[in-house]
Amino acid sequence: MIYRFQVFVFFLLLGACSEKSNVANKEQVKEELQLPSWNEGATRSSILDFVKKTTTDGSADFVPVEDRIAVFDNDGTLWAEQPFYFQVAYALDYVKKEAPNHPDWAKDPVLKAAIEGDIQGVLGAGEKGLIEIVMKSHAGMTEDQFEDAVSSWIATAKHPQTGKAYNEMIYQPMLELLDYLRAHDYKTFIVSGGGIDFMRVWAEKAYGIPPYQVVGSSIKASYEVVDGEPQLMKIPELNFIDDKAGKPVGIHQHIGKKPILAVGNSDGDFQMLEYTTKQEGARLGIILHHTDSVREYAYDSLSPIGNLKRGLIEGPSRGWIIIDMAKDWSAIYPN
Amino acid sequence: MIYRFQVFVFFLLLGACSEKSNVANKEQVKEELQLPSWNEGATRSSILDFVKKTTTDGSADFVPVEDRIAVFDNDGTLWAEQPFYFQVAYALDYVKKEAPNHPDWAKDPVLKAAIEGDIQGVLGAGEKGLIEIVMKSHAGMTEDQFEDAVSSWIATAKHPQTGKAYNEMIYQPMLELLDYLRAHDYKTFIVSGGGIDFMRVWAEKAYGIPPYQVVGSSIKASYEVVDGEPQLMKIPELNFIDDKAGKPVGIHQHIGKKPILAVGNSDGDFQMLEYTTKQEGARLGIILHHTDSVREYAYDSLSPIGNLKRGLIEGPSRGWIIIDMAKDWSAIYPN
Repeated sequence: MIYRFQVFVFFLLLGACSEKSNVANKEQVKEELQLPSWNEGATRSSILDFVKKTTTDGSADFVPVEDRIAVFDNDGTLWAEQPFYFQVAYALDYVKKEAPNHPDWAKDPVLKAAIEGDIQGVLGAGEKGLIEIVMKSHAGMTEDQFEDAVSSWIATAKHPQTGKAYNEMIYQPMLELLDYLRAHDYKTFIVSGGGIDFMRVWAEKAYGIPPYQVVGSSIKASYEVVDGEPQLMKIPELNFIDDKAGKPVGIHQHIGKKPILAVGNSDGDFQMLEYTTKQEGARLGIILHHTDSVREYAYDSLSPIGNLKRGLIEGPSRGWIIIDMAKDWSAIYPN
Repeated sequence: MIYRFQVFVFFLLLGACSEKSNVANKEQVKEELQLPSWNEGATRSSILDFVKKTTTDGSADFVPVEDRIAVFDNDGTLWAEQPFYFQVAYALDYVKKEAPNHPDWAKDPVLKAAIEGDIQGVLGAGEKGLIEIVMKSHAGMTEDQFEDAVSSWIATAKHPQTGKAYNEMIYQPMLELLDYLRAHDYKTFIVSGGGIDFMRVWAEKAYGIPPYQVVGSSIKASYEVVDGEPQLMKIPELNFIDDKAGKPVGIHQHIGKKPILAVGNSDGDFQMLEYTTKQEGARLGIILHHTDSVREYAYDSLSPIGNLKRGLIEGPSRGWIIIDMAKDWSAIYPN
């Protein structure tokens, strides 16, 4: 601190104005943030080049601060998603925990499977089964009750394979990219197929992304005053599915500006990357390819979760960067 | 600038560290922003007191930066709304301008009234008539086409009574309050019954509120790729009405945090103020009462636009501040 202060005074004595020395200091911070967990190579340098050209005054590709919008998928892009979406793990744990208060649940085959920990039995019922579990664990309660349920789950639940807390299975290189973009005055948003309220509970702490910069799927809600107390009730009816062609719609409705940078990992993100990169001006699409069976998971076109096929085929000719996790990342999770 | 620079160096020479002098400088900026167009009195001092106690370190009512969420209604709160909502003026002008391209519109009585400038004929058809006009002027086009239409309207249209551009009929005292809150690290949001996309076109320039901090009513949208080009089409189907009990729902869906300060002017804002101020901790509700028939308009419980009755009756006992426009504001519009 003392050294920095001396450097600062030195700049002043040299006659530089305070604004210039602030800029110098900011540049230094930016350099320190240059993606340390990304291995040197084309992927890392393409990202750095894009950020540089869009944020350097006088560059042909300069983008004004108010248009620097970056959108990130969540499941499989900012945190892991195998062997099944972590939000499903929350839903299953919730149903199991609450079952003693709802004896009628045991009569329903999907809920019964969830209560007995028979994950295949739940997943075997397909989308309908999943929606049933989600509605039981996300609706019929106030926003505060839901927040409490997710908070206590994320603080205690462990991933069945790694034994880590779920919010420890976030990707260190992506945290660095988020920080790096924000240091260059980008606004960072999540645009995920996952539940908007589920993510908002822990995303600010995990990623530095506040609730109003989280876009996701949602159920309906209603406002009621019960015994004089206002309540926001979450009701068991789908409101919006923020996936595939829904992602550009979610961006339009929540952000109201076209992004210039989009990051995803599955074909559920294809339209978001297409919408972002087909606009005029400097634009970048990035796909995280899960290629690391040792440190994380290796999957793409055959996986039921995070299926990635079209993005791999068409991405390169569209100028999208494909991150090879095994090759491009020197770390996966934060220490 | 030179004087400020000298003051800055003086602080440094005194041995204050750079952080401290920045804080001093920031405090000075805050003082300069103290609501110059608000007359001295209970209204102004209650607002200043609230901001001070929620942002002063060590205060019993201190609120962390990430929870400093302020929500403002738009029509009648941030800009004028008489003799009818300005968005309706846009819709009527659009239908009139586009009518030559749509000969079939003249067969519809509501559209015909709009084309002929017969505003009473349109308003006489009630909500159904208004929705028809809104759908013709807000849907069936891409987001870019809509943005262009609103941009060129706001740049050229004039209010029938004042002759001012509509975006000149924003309230100077509210601009100062927005600035003052932001200088105290509040995030400022619009939560309006008006159209979200309509406001987003001009709100950033008018109020310093970016598109992703605008919440409003909306129609549906769909993502399509036409001749290889991605398009976001606005389709003529209601998506969400952000009014009355819809406002807390809109806040929940878009912001995902409970506000601590809410400002409105009509009973359409009642639930937003109730939701905000019934929470624990320091909370503030503010209602703008239009009492100035000379400089603006005087209306409340009898007005079809911006009807205010319950808020006036219950507001004071709920601790809400009622701004008396004629008495509390020394200026209405910016110079």
